[in-house]
Amino acid sequence: MAYSLLIRHCGQLLTLAGGPPDRPLAGEDQRNWRIIPDGYVACEGDQIVAVGPMQELDRAQVTGGTAIVEAHGRVVMPGLVECHTHLVFGGNRAHEFQRKLKGEAYLDILASGGGILSTVRATRAASEEDLLRNALHHLAGFRHYGVTTVEAKSGYGLDRETELALVRAAGTAGHRQEVRVVRTFLGAHVVPPEFQGRAAEYLDFLASDVLPALHGVADFVDIFCEAGAFSVEQSRSYLQKAKAQGFRLKIHAEQLHDLGGCEMAAALGATSIDHCDYLTPEAAARIAHVSDGHTVAVLLPLVPLFLRQEKYAPGRQFIDAGLPVAVSTDFNPGSCPSKNLWLALAVACLKMGLTPLEAIAAVTLNAAWAIGQEQLCGSLEPGKRADILLLEVPTYQEIPYWLGENPVREVIIGGVRIERPE
Amino acid sequence: MAYSLLIRHCGQLLTLAGGPPDRPLAGEDQRNWRIIPDGYVACEGDQIVAVGPMQELDRAQVTGGTAIVEAHGRVVMPGLVECHTHLVFGGNRAHEFQRKLKGEAYLDILASGGGILSTVRATRAASEEDLLRNALHHLAGFRHYGVTTVEAKSGYGLDRETELALVRAAGTAGHRQEVRVVRTFLGAHVVPPEFQGRAAEYLDFLASDVLPALHGVADFVDIFCEAGAFSVEQSRSYLQKAKAQGFRLKIHAEQLHDLGGCEMAAALGATSIDHCDYLTPEAAARIAHVSDGHTVAVLLPLVPLFLRQEKYAPGRQFIDAGLPVAVSTDFNPGSCPSKNLWLALAVACLKMGLTPLEAIAAVTLNAAWAIGQEQLCGSLEPGKRADILLLEVPTYQEIPYWLGENPVREVIIGGVRIERPE
Ligand SMILES: [Zn+2]
Ligand SMILES: [Zn+2]
Repeated sequence: MAYSLLIRHCGQLLTLAGGPPDRPLAGEDQRNWRIIPDGYVACEGDQIVAVGPMQELDRAQVTGGTAIVEAHGRVVMPGLVECHTHLVFGGNRAHEFQRKLKGEAYLDILASGGGILSTVRATRAASEEDLLRNALHHLAGFRHYGVTTVEAKSGYGLDRETELALVRAAGTAGHRQEVRVVRTFLGAHVVPPEFQGRAAEYLDFLASDVLPALHGVADFVDIFCEAGAFSVEQSRSYLQKAKAQGFRLKIHAEQLHDLGGCEMAAALGATSIDHCDYLTPEAAARIAHVSDGHTVAVLLPLVPLFLRQEKYAPGRQFIDAGLPVAVSTDFNPGSCPSKNLWLALAVACLKMGLTPLEAIAAVTLNAAWAIGQEQLCGSLEPGKRADILLLEVPTYQEIPYWLGENPVREVIIGGVRIERPE
Repeated sequence: MAYSLLIRHCGQLLTLAGGPPDRPLAGEDQRNWRIIPDGYVACEGDQIVAVGPMQELDRAQVTGGTAIVEAHGRVVMPGLVECHTHLVFGGNRAHEFQRKLKGEAYLDILASGGGILSTVRATRAASEEDLLRNALHHLAGFRHYGVTTVEAKSGYGLDRETELALVRAAGTAGHRQEVRVVRTFLGAHVVPPEFQGRAAEYLDFLASDVLPALHGVADFVDIFCEAGAFSVEQSRSYLQKAKAQGFRLKIHAEQLHDLGGCEMAAALGATSIDHCDYLTPEAAARIAHVSDGHTVAVLLPLVPLFLRQEKYAPGRQFIDAGLPVAVSTDFNPGSCPSKNLWLALAVACLKMGLTPLEAIAAVTLNAAWAIGQEQLCGSLEPGKRADILLLEVPTYQEIPYWLGENPVREVIIGGVRIERPE
């Protein structure tokens, strides 16, 4: 079989390979994965079939039908995996931004009927076509940054019909363009007005009336465990029901307080625990132990920056404690409207103490583990999908260095060269 | 005369007009400039000739030869003015980034021969052709963000020959592409190894042996007034000599300590005082008074972010004290390698308390004042150069909101449509 696509003369080929096959990268593994100098990646159709140093390239497989991408000594790496977004919503909250600039707290805005509930109103009022159009717009933005897989949560409908529409729109958006979409049901984002003061009843409704419609549709069930949303006990009960129905689990926890939601979810076998700004290193070590290294902490460094908070998850200590770490934007209209995952990567280095190599693993292989896509993407290895980025820079150190810039020169998804999309 | 170019149906036309004609925007003026809903901008050649609401458009001037840009209700604004960069240098310091990530202080890196002196070595070793190629690469990057005028400082040569080469390279780079370049001589960036321990002698050498070669070549003379660089007294003496030779003045001051450099420079009539992280609101009020509102404080919010420092200039209080404020990236290889001026604008809002309108003025009209270009650019007014941006967003509030993203859809420089350059 001849190669259909060959990326050659990659100055640094960031394979993300070489770690344990059965779990995310943790501890030293998160920075000791394999970098090949002067390497190549060969693909057949939508699959990677060979990766290695140029001198080991099997030139017999390179024929007149092989499309050649010359990397000219630049960095080549896996497509980014964006493992935590609230992709589908109506409206935006730019008008609220000035309130935040005057120092108003997130929970105060929430309490005054603004914040998330204003997006719920806009989302309920939007047509499914509008929601789809917005989602496609944002996916095009992500693709521009080299994101080739996106997790998309529902959570701005908070009623059966709208929540199901959000999950549908995310799926349709994933089929209408190249970036792959993984779906998470976050009906338990906040208590809707219709259930005010009856959080437990709302969760019972979701578990009995909505989750059954999502079997085989959504992969994950998520909940926002925080003051003003759902308690640890409510979250535990709901996640147990979701697990019993066959869903994999996620949680938003320890964003603003140390309530214990992360440990609770990890004990239930959660695939990821997200935010973790108030998670202690001691709890992180316990989670690494109880999950046998399988639960990924998804860190969202642009959220404290956007919310003007000073407390960032101690990512450095999480890694030192053996907890696998991923990084995401948390793209959403309220607490982080950014799709610039490279900026999130840099701020994870600056504010959470990750090294560049740890941060690169956090937006590729560990992010893939965080959304159950580790068999398909996140590293450059034979058998994985040919989701590949050619960057402008010659060394990985320059990725966080040119702060806030987009280093992507070319995006390849499933073996197809996507022109740099603007 | 028919219009050669018409941008029409601008949802919000951010003119930056309406403030005092003889000084930068200060206090309320920095946020109360004129926004025209459903507006147009008309150009003849490289000049703006008319600006107004669509219903006042003189349709007789729109002929078959008029190029039409349809804004489709989006924001249209002046090209960004980047008023503080160290554009021309050899190498980069991505390898030093890990030292910073481990918490090493800037002045410690400086003291160990790293930091700025490693860039000086790389710059001295580079050919003028290499320096020019790098400068052109970075100018293309700035243009991608909608920057249409860039100030470029020398300061990594620290000997006569290399410093003059840097100023030359900046000038040549400005003529080889569309973005305008304004040149500043920063030979007084730090004491070079050859003058170690003899800072005053080095400044005397610059004033007597280098400045005379820069008459009519560099517009500004700048100095880094800080512990480890030059004292306030040394800076005063040097700037006085530069002023006597006819140069306009700038200073890097109050970046890491409150030494009084900003007030000293303002008393000498400095056009801008840059960094100001440790400048107090009381000193800001005195500067606004002594300069009669003409000295602009250039704030560099990405520098503390990149250096992992928590102290940001109190921009909110500066504006309240009547001091005009501009915002810049400080693009340089050591303390801020970012060309993303939109990110700087957003961080100025988040960390320095500017409102979106104040921050927009800070990267346009006030930035133009900060580099003596206020007659040419920084606002959309008849007689100014047709440097115009069409953005993706429909309202100015969305500019800082989509954190770290580049909202530019199209760049027009001197009346010429530059395709969005990637
Ligand atoms: Zn979230
Ligand atoms: Zn500077």
